[in-house]
Amino acid sequence: MNEHPDIPGFAYADGGVVAPLGFRSSGVSAGLKSGNKLDLALIAAEKTIPAAAVFTTNKVAAAPVIVSRRHIAGGLARAVIINSANANACTGAQGQRDAVAMADAVAEALDCAASDVIVASTGVIGVPLPAGKVTAAVPGAVEALDSRSGDTAATAIMTTDTFAKQVAISLDVSGRRITVGGMAKGSGMIAPNMATMIAVITTDAPMTSEACDAALRHAVALTFNRVTVDMDTSTNDTCVLLASGAAGGDDIAPGSPEFKQVLEAIWVVAEQLARMIARDGEGATKLITVTVSSAASDSDAAKAAFTIANSPLVKTALFGNDANWGRVAGALGRSDAELDPDAFDIDFAGIPVCRAGEGVAFDEAKALEALRQPEVTIGVELHLGDGSATVWTCDLTYEYVRINGEYRS
Amino acid sequence: MNEHPDIPGFAYADGGVVAPLGFRSSGVSAGLKSGNKLDLALIAAEKTIPAAAVFTTNKVAAAPVIVSRRHIAGGLARAVIINSANANACTGAQGQRDAVAMADAVAEALDCAASDVIVASTGVIGVPLPAGKVTAAVPGAVEALDSRSGDTAATAIMTTDTFAKQVAISLDVSGRRITVGGMAKGSGMIAPNMATMIAVITTDAPMTSEACDAALRHAVALTFNRVTVDMDTSTNDTCVLLASGAAGGDDIAPGSPEFKQVLEAIWVVAEQLARMIARDGEGATKLITVTVSSAASDSDAAKAAFTIANSPLVKTALFGNDANWGRVAGALGRSDAELDPDAFDIDFAGIPVCRAGEGVAFDEAKALEALRQPEVTIGVELHLGDGSATVWTCDLTYEYVRINGEYRS
Repeated sequence: MNEHPDIPGFAYADGGVVAPLGFRSSGVSAGLKSGNKLDLALIAAEKTIPAAAVFTTNKVAAAPVIVSRRHIAGGLARAVIINSANANACTGAQGQRDAVAMADAVAEALDCAASDVIVASTGVIGVPLPAGKVTAAVPGAVEALDSRSGDTAATAIMTTDTFAKQVAISLDVSGRRITVGGMAKGSGMIAPNMATMIAVITTDAPMTSEACDAALRHAVALTFNRVTVDMDTSTNDTCVLLASGAAGGDDIAPGSPEFKQVLEAIWVVAEQLARMIARDGEGATKLITVTVSSAASDSDAAKAAFTIANSPLVKTALFGNDANWGRVAGALGRSDAELDPDAFDIDFAGIPVCRAGEGVAFDEAKALEALRQPEVTIGVELHLGDGSATVWTCDLTYEYVRINGEYRS
Repeated sequence: MNEHPDIPGFAYADGGVVAPLGFRSSGVSAGLKSGNKLDLALIAAEKTIPAAAVFTTNKVAAAPVIVSRRHIAGGLARAVIINSANANACTGAQGQRDAVAMADAVAEALDCAASDVIVASTGVIGVPLPAGKVTAAVPGAVEALDSRSGDTAATAIMTTDTFAKQVAISLDVSGRRITVGGMAKGSGMIAPNMATMIAVITTDAPMTSEACDAALRHAVALTFNRVTVDMDTSTNDTCVLLASGAAGGDDIAPGSPEFKQVLEAIWVVAEQLARMIARDGEGATKLITVTVSSAASDSDAAKAAFTIANSPLVKTALFGNDANWGRVAGALGRSDAELDPDAFDIDFAGIPVCRAGEGVAFDEAKALEALRQPEVTIGVELHLGDGSATVWTCDLTYEYVRINGEYRS
C-alpha cells in the first residue's frame, strides 16, 4: 500500500475544502493581523459528521492541540476554527481556557456541542491569545460561510506563506462521484516565531470514523510527514479530515475496495498540499524531491532521505545550483541507514554523478542548467534491498536567513 | 568525572603542538592549494611513542581514515601527516593506495615503520588525490621540522577556517611540569565540498597507550563531539593524541591520580580548540554555548542541547539578536529528551525569558544588547533530575549561505 497511488480518471476540481458536497467555509478578520487582514478561518459541515485528526508529536503542544485532541476523541466533528497570527502555545492554563472559548463560540453559533469543534492556531509562541477578539469575530465567520469557494479560509490561515494552498480532486468510486478537497498552511515549520503546518481535508465520501482515522494516518505518514523545511516540527501542527457522506451510498469502512480508492484520493490531495508547503519553504527558490531506493528497508530509506533533505550543506549547494554530491554522500554516511560505502549511486536531476561510491565525470554545464529549474530531484540507490522513500524539501537561501533572523530585531 | 575540570596553577604556553617536549612540526606547500599556500602539515616525535586516535563515525569514511585506523591499532605512532585541499574521500581503492603512499613517504624520511605514521586529509570529496605532489613534498616537510612553533602546521591544515587554531597549557603533576598542546581545523563540518574536523594533541606526559586512548576518548566525547556547526559530521574527522614522555617520570596509567590531572589538561586543550571551531563556524558572527541542566539524564541533556544547537531557526534568531525563546521551546519539545512542558525554564544570555513553560516579561533592549556580544549563552533547566550537557555552536548567517552556496557555481 506504499506504492504511489495511480488513480484512473480523476480530475482536479475548484473550491478547495468546499469542493466536496456538504461543506461551507469562510475567512474573516478578527484583528489579530494588522490592517484587517484575514486571520480567522472556519470550515463547517451541515451536521456533525465522521472526522479524524493528527497532531504534532512535539512535547510542547499548544493549547488548541491539547483541547482538540480531547474533542476529536469521539471520531466526530461539525466544524474547524483556525486563527493565524498567534499560536496560543506556551500560554499555560489561560491558553487552554482561550482555546475552549473559541470552540464554545463556534458551538453556540452553529448550535452544536463544543466537543464537535476542532480548534487550531498558528503564529507567535508565548504571547497570550486575544481570545475576546477571536470569539467576537465568530458570528461574522458563521455569517460568511459559503459553499462556493475556499479562498478566504485558505488565505486566513497563512502566516509567512507566500501563496494560499488549496487543491481538490474528484473521482468515480463504485459509480458514485466522490470529491476530496483540502487547504494547508506552512512554510518554515516554526516560521518567524510562528508555528505550524495546519491542513484541513474534506470529502463527501460516506466514510466511517474508523475509515477517516485510518485514511488520514496513512496519507499523512507519506506526505505531510515527509516534508521538511528545517526539521522544526512545531508546537501546533494539526491535520484534520472531515467526511460529510453527502455523495451518498453505503458507508465506506477500512479494508473495502472503496476505502482504498478514497484513501488514494486523500493521499493525492495531501501530497499536493505537502509539495506546495515544501515549495513555499521560507525563502525557497526551488522544490527538492529526495528519493532513496533499494535501501535495506522503507524506514532506512526514510532515514537516509531525511538526513539528505535536512542537511544545510546540501540545501545551500542546491541554492547555488551546485551538483555537490560529496555532501549527499556525507549525509548518507552519517544517517542511521544501512550503507555499503562502495555500492551507492547518486543522481542529481537525473544526471549520474556518483556510481559505486565514487565520482563519475559529468557535464557541469548540463548539470548547472538542470539545477537551475524550479524543481530538482536527488536520486540515491543503495543496492541493499527494496526499501524506498521520498521526502520533499527546499533550498536554504539568503532569504531564509533574512526572514528568520530579522523578524524582531 | 563529567564535572568540568578545574585545574589549579595551570598556565597557557606558546607553540601549540610543539609546546610539549619531544615534538617538532612543519607546514609546507605541496601545490594542492593555489598560490603556494601551505597545505601539508607534519608533526613528528623523536621516536615512536604511545598514541591514540578517534575517527569519524560516518559510514562513508575517507581513505586516510581507513588506513589510519589500521596504523593506530598498536597504540603507537611516530608522526602525523595531514594534507588540506583534498579529502581523499569517495576515491576507492586508488584513494587507499594514495593514503598508504603518504605514510610510506614519511616513514622513509623519518626511518620508521609506515604503520607508525597517521595520515589525515581534508578538502574536496570525490576527486583523486594528487599523491605524487604530496609525497614529493614530504622530504621538505621533514627538513622543515621545527620545535619552536606550531604555526605553519596549524596554518597548513586550514580549509575554510578564518584563523589557525592552536593552544597549549602546562601544569604541575606530582612535581613534574607537564605540557599539553594542540591544533585543530574545522569550520563547517563539510565545508564547501570540504571535509572535516582534524585535531592533533600532544603531551610530554609519560602516558601509556591505554592512558592515551582513555584520555582522548573522554576528552573528545565532551568537547569535539559537543561542537555542531551544521550537523554534517564528515567523512574525514580525525583526532590524534601523542604522548612523548619527555617530561620524565614514571608511566601514567588510567586510574591513577596523575592520569586524572593529565586527562583534565587534555580536556581543557580539546575544549579550547572545540570552542575555536564553533566560533569559526562558516560565516559565524558569534559563539553560542547551549547548556541544558537538571535533565533526567546526561544523555537526555545532550539530546536537548544538540536539538537546540542544530535548529536553523534558533541559529538564525541569534544572528538577528532575537531572544526568540519560542524556537528553543519548540526544539526542546521535538528532541527525544524527557520533558515536562509546564516546568522548563529558558535564559538567553543570563536573562530569564521563560519560566515553567510560559513567557516572562523581559527588557528587550537589554536582551538585544546582550545578544549582540560575540559570545552568547542559552541556558535551559528541565527540573527533572541532575543530568547536564553543554554544546557549542554558532549562528546561521547570510555568509554561511554564501560560502556554501556559491562555492562552485
